Amino acid sequence: MPVNLVPPRAEDLLPVKGVALGVAEAGVRKANRKDLMVMRLAAGASVAGVFTQNRFCAAPVIVCKQQLAGGKWVRALVVNTGNANAGTGEDGLARSRLACAELARLLGCDGEQVLPFSTGVIMEPLPVERIVAALPRALADCREDNWANAAEAIMTTDTVPKACSRRLELGGKQVSVTGMAKGAGMIHPDMATMLGFVATDAAVSRAALQQMLSQAAARSFNRISVDGDTSTNDSFILIATGAAGTQAIADESHPDYAALAAAVTDVAVWLAQAIIRDGEGATKFITVQVQGGKTEEECGKVAYAIAHSPLVKTAFFASDPNLGRLLCAIGYAGIPDLDVGRVRLYLGDVLVAADGGRNPAYREEDGQRVMQQSEITVRVELARGAAETTVWTCDLSHDYVSINADYRS
Amino acid sequence: MPVNLVPPRAEDLLPVKGVALGVAEAGVRKANRKDLMVMRLAAGASVAGVFTQNRFCAAPVIVCKQQLAGGKWVRALVVNTGNANAGTGEDGLARSRLACAELARLLGCDGEQVLPFSTGVIMEPLPVERIVAALPRALADCREDNWANAAEAIMTTDTVPKACSRRLELGGKQVSVTGMAKGAGMIHPDMATMLGFVATDAAVSRAALQQMLSQAAARSFNRISVDGDTSTNDSFILIATGAAGTQAIADESHPDYAALAAAVTDVAVWLAQAIIRDGEGATKFITVQVQGGKTEEECGKVAYAIAHSPLVKTAFFASDPNLGRLLCAIGYAGIPDLDVGRVRLYLGDVLVAADGGRNPAYREEDGQRVMQQSEITVRVELARGAAETTVWTCDLSHDYVSINADYRS
Repeated sequence: MPVNLVPPRAEDLLPVKGVALGVAEAGVRKANRKDLMVMRLAAGASVAGVFTQNRFCAAPVIVCKQQLAGGKWVRALVVNTGNANAGTGEDGLARSRLACAELARLLGCDGEQVLPFSTGVIMEPLPVERIVAALPRALADCREDNWANAAEAIMTTDTVPKACSRRLELGGKQVSVTGMAKGAGMIHPDMATMLGFVATDAAVSRAALQQMLSQAAARSFNRISVDGDTSTNDSFILIATGAAGTQAIADESHPDYAALAAAVTDVAVWLAQAIIRDGEGATKFITVQVQGGKTEEECGKVAYAIAHSPLVKTAFFASDPNLGRLLCAIGYAGIPDLDVGRVRLYLGDVLVAADGGRNPAYREEDGQRVMQQSEITVRVELARGAAETTVWTCDLSHDYVSINADYRS
Repeated sequence: MPVNLVPPRAEDLLPVKGVALGVAEAGVRKANRKDLMVMRLAAGASVAGVFTQNRFCAAPVIVCKQQLAGGKWVRALVVNTGNANAGTGEDGLARSRLACAELARLLGCDGEQVLPFSTGVIMEPLPVERIVAALPRALADCREDNWANAAEAIMTTDTVPKACSRRLELGGKQVSVTGMAKGAGMIHPDMATMLGFVATDAAVSRAALQQMLSQAAARSFNRISVDGDTSTNDSFILIATGAAGTQAIADESHPDYAALAAAVTDVAVWLAQAIIRDGEGATKFITVQVQGGKTEEECGKVAYAIAHSPLVKTAFFASDPNLGRLLCAIGYAGIPDLDVGRVRLYLGDVLVAADGGRNPAYREEDGQRVMQQSEITVRVELARGAAETTVWTCDLSHDYVSINADYRS
C-alpha cells in the first residue's frame, strides 16, 4: 500500500501540445500487460536528459546519450518494461538500436532521432522482436490525452501509476507541464530503474532545457538517490515542444525561465516523492532535513546516512522511537570533526536529543506519537553553519524483502 | 538459525593463564539472564584496543580510550549487555566510571585500571546500580576455565555464543590464544555493537600487542565492516598476560612475533566470520572476493558495494541467481574508469558474466545450483591490477526485519 498516494485521474493530467503517447501489450516479459509506451514529439521539440552514473549502464542509456550527443531532433521515445537490457554487452546495444530503427521506419525519420528506454530485469536479452511487433499498435494508440495510460505502461513493481501536471501562463499563453515516472525501490538508491519523463509545450532552447532539467533533478530525483549509487538504467528526460506558441526561452536570463523552471521542478519533486511513497514495501514517508551544516555536501552525508540505515528504517517500520539508531547514523555519517554535543535531533516537533544524549524533557510517548504517523519528519541541527538539505525516504518492511526476494519469480 | 555455526564446547576453549572470567545476572535489562561479565587480569598484563570511529561513540568507549592512554596496568574488564550506554552524554561517562571504580574497589586497584564495555540499546541511562550490585557475584565466579560462560554473558541478539582457541608453542612453551566476540547485525556495518576480546598467555610488549591487534583487526573484523561506518560501541581488545613464561616479544622483529600474530589473526577471523554466520536473520554465509584491482581500496569498494546491496542480499535469501544485481553493484561501487567489458564475475565456480554481459555459456541451472548452497563465494575479477580483498557478509531475510523491528519490545 503506497503512503498517501492515489493514482492520478486521467482528467487531471494536462495534455502537452506536440506530445502524443501510445501504449501496447508487447509481451516483453508477461502477457496481457501494457509494457510498451511510445511518445511522438512534434518537429522541433527540444529534449534534454540526465542519466545514471553506473559503470554498468544499460544499453538504452548508452544509445540515448549517443543520440542526444549527435544533436539530431528527437522525434520519438520508445519505452519498454519487463526487461532492462542492462548487462547485455554489444548485443544489447544492437537490440536497443533495432527498436529505434523500427520505430523510425514507421515514423519516416532516422533511427538516431528515437530515444530508447528499458526497465525490468537485468542481464537477460531484450526480446526486441516482440517490441518491434507491437510498435504499430502503440503508434495507432498515440494521442495527446493519453498520459494516464502511458504512466501505467511504464510501471514495474510500482503499485500506482505516477503522473501529475501543472499549468502556468507565459506571456499570456497557457502552458502545460506534465510528467510521469516509475520506480518503486528506494530503500537504497541502487534498487530499481527510475524513469522520469516531463514535457511542456513551452518553447525552450536545448541548452536552457538541459539547465532546467539539471536544476530540477538536483531538487527531486537526486534527493532520493546518492551520486554514483544509481541503477543501471536511471533516466530523466525533459521535453519542450514549443507548440503552445510562447516566446522561446534561450537561456536563464529570459523572464519566463524562472516560472517554467519552478513548474518543472514542482512536477519533478512530486514524482520523486511519489516514488518514495510507493517504495517497495513502504508504510511510512520520511522526510530527513539536515540543517546548520558547513556545506550542503556534509548535510547530505548525514541525511543519507539516516535514510540508508536499515536499522533506522526497520525502527520506522515498527513505529519504534529507537532514537539511538538515528544518533548512531549521524555519528558515522563521515563528518570527522562533528561536535556531537551541539547536535540537536528532532522527531517531528519533538526535541529528542541534545548535549550528546537524550533530551531530559523527552518522553517516550511523545516519540511514539510521532512514529505512529504515516508521514514523519526527522530534523537534525548540526550547529556548524548555514547549509541545509532535505532527502526523502521510506521504511524497511517485511514486504520489502518479499518483493525483492520474489521479483523474478 | 546461524549458518554452520555451533556453540563452542567448554572443553574446547583453552584457559589463558592470568585471565580469570566471571559472570552474573545483573538484571540490566531483563531478569534471569547472564548480562554481566568480568575479566580479571594478572599483574603486568599488556592490553591493546581498537575502537569505533563513530562520532557518537559510547561512554564506555571514551572511558576505555582514556584509561588505555593513561598507561596504567589494566587489571580488569567489566562488560554488560542490555544497555550500550551510548548517546548518554556526561551522565553516561559518570556511570561508566562508577562501574570501573566499584570493581577497582573490590579488587584493591585504581578505577583507571579497569576498562568498561557496554552493549545493548542506545540512548537509555545505564542502570549502573544493578551492575554494581552484581559485581561481587561476578567476581566470586571468576576462574580461568570460564570462557564458555563468559561468551554467553556478552550476547545480545546473538543466537550462539562465539569463542574459539588456538594453541601454539613458543620457545618450547605451550601458549594459548582464546577469544570471544558478540555481534549479530551485519547486513550493514552500523548495526550492532561488536565486542571482541582475545587473550594470550604469551608475553608481549604493549606496542607490539597494539600492532598485532591492528593487523588482526584489518584481516578480520574490518573485513565485515567499513571504515567510518561502525557502531557506537565497537571494541576489539587484545590481552597478553605473559603468564605462560615465554620470552617477551618487544617488537615485530622477535622470532616469535609472526607465529603468535598468525594465531591471534586466526582467532579473530574465526570470530568475525562467526558474527556473520550468526548475522541477524542470516541463512547464507557469503564470501566476496575481489581480485585484479589497482589498489586494495578499490577492491574493497566493489566488495562492500556487493556486500551492502539490499537487492543482492535479498536475492541470496531467495536463492535467486539474479546476477544483474551483482553487476549493478559493481557498476556503482565508485571506480570511475572501470572498464566493465573486462570484468569477470563468478558465482562459486560458475563464470556468469564477461565482456560486459552474461557469459554465453552460462546456464540458469548452474547459478541456481550455487545459490542453493548455504556458503557461497562471489568472485569478481577487475582485470586492472594485482590487488585483492575479501569480505564476508550474509543475506537479507524476513527474520532480519522481524529482529530489528522488535528489538526493543
